[in-house]
Amino acid sequence: MVQVEQDILAKNNQHARFNREFLAERGIFAVNLVSSPGSGKTTLLTESIKRLLPSLPITVIEGDQQTTNDAERIRATGAPALQINTGKGCHLDASMVERALERLQPPEESVLFIENVGNLVCPAAFDLGEAHKVVVLSVTEGEDKPLKYPDMFKAATLMLLNKVDLLPYLTYDVAKCIEYARRVNPAIEVMQVSATKGDGLDTWLAWVRLHAVTARHARVQPKVVAAE
Amino acid sequence: MVQVEQDILAKNNQHARFNREFLAERGIFAVNLVSSPGSGKTTLLTESIKRLLPSLPITVIEGDQQTTNDAERIRATGAPALQINTGKGCHLDASMVERALERLQPPEESVLFIENVGNLVCPAAFDLGEAHKVVVLSVTEGEDKPLKYPDMFKAATLMLLNKVDLLPYLTYDVAKCIEYARRVNPAIEVMQVSATKGDGLDTWLAWVRLHAVTARHARVQPKVVAAE
Repeated sequence: MVQVEQDILAKNNQHARFNREFLAERGIFAVNLVSSPGSGKTTLLTESIKRLLPSLPITVIEGDQQTTNDAERIRATGAPALQINTGKGCHLDASMVERALERLQPPEESVLFIENVGNLVCPAAFDLGEAHKVVVLSVTEGEDKPLKYPDMFKAATLMLLNKVDLLPYLTYDVAKCIEYARRVNPAIEVMQVSATKGDGLDTWLAWVRLHAVTARHARVQPKVVAAE
Repeated sequence: MVQVEQDILAKNNQHARFNREFLAERGIFAVNLVSSPGSGKTTLLTESIKRLLPSLPITVIEGDQQTTNDAERIRATGAPALQINTGKGCHLDASMVERALERLQPPEESVLFIENVGNLVCPAAFDLGEAHKVVVLSVTEGEDKPLKYPDMFKAATLMLLNKVDLLPYLTYDVAKCIEYARRVNPAIEVMQVSATKGDGLDTWLAWVRLHAVTARHARVQPKVVAAE
């Protein structure tokens, strides 16, 4: 089993490297959004895209076991979106993203959002070629999730603590949740947001814009093919 | 890959059959609680156990990637609990439950709750030998989860729609969620509950008690070994 797992991850990493080069050559900033089902990723995306367009071109890859609901919600904002249905699968892998990139052809110097299948376990192990994994955690899920699903919180650069508008109606200790996240990943950045009410979105969007600029600046020029 | 998957599931099913016989011989009713992370399974369990003890003996198997928090919360109610940490694993399998049953030795004519790893995808495929899978869906997760994760809602007998005390603060259409669940599983039973406030728990506990009685009545006597 361990051998099969290693083979799968090694093959995935090849595709991830290909994706990373594809994105770097075009100065595209790619974010892989991961979370439990129902943490509010799609609403966060639609609200973010509305605020980022048209100054920043955006493309979205949507992952779900079934339905094209999310891609439809994204397209309604004006951003191109491709839905990947994983069927029995519990995560996106890099080869799925590679095929999606071929079909979507995201514009140069744009932002690519990848919304992974809602799952705090399996997507942690799969590099898709993204610049960062961003974990969205809804405050309705309890403070202890970083300790219970440490791989995901270790893999993420940023934790978005979503649905903070519901805090008055919950018994929830924000400081404790952040302490737990830092315990498994001392470097993790944290932002408190409400995708539906708009709280904290400015900070998150500033983070996206900043990384989009640095991806543009760090743009890797395709290797010049020597003339024969 | 398909072959590897079939081999894993076939091996799992052998252990599940063993568990099912073990439970049937002892008249034990076993429920496998499945959901996203943070849907409120552990709180539902602690509140249920407080109301079911001491008239109904209860044992609990807890699954999480990391931490023994949940088993500790269960033990505080007075019910014996064993924590399984799956590490990188995204679900409990039947062999883990088999080993847990050996260690726990749940009493005859009791109820066994198995709280699976929080994951709406992978645990759907793994029979643990339980009588029923019960899917817990928090209303904060949105209405569309049954359509997006149909395997889990097909595999479940009962959907507990939890955290209904938060409905006044959400945009959530209960009827639509139930319609979606029935679309993927026309036979699914539905109950609306709030584990923290107590709403609907009586109905859920009546369901547990009823199945505990039928497990007792249907108790399979161990095969009599012929005298030599």
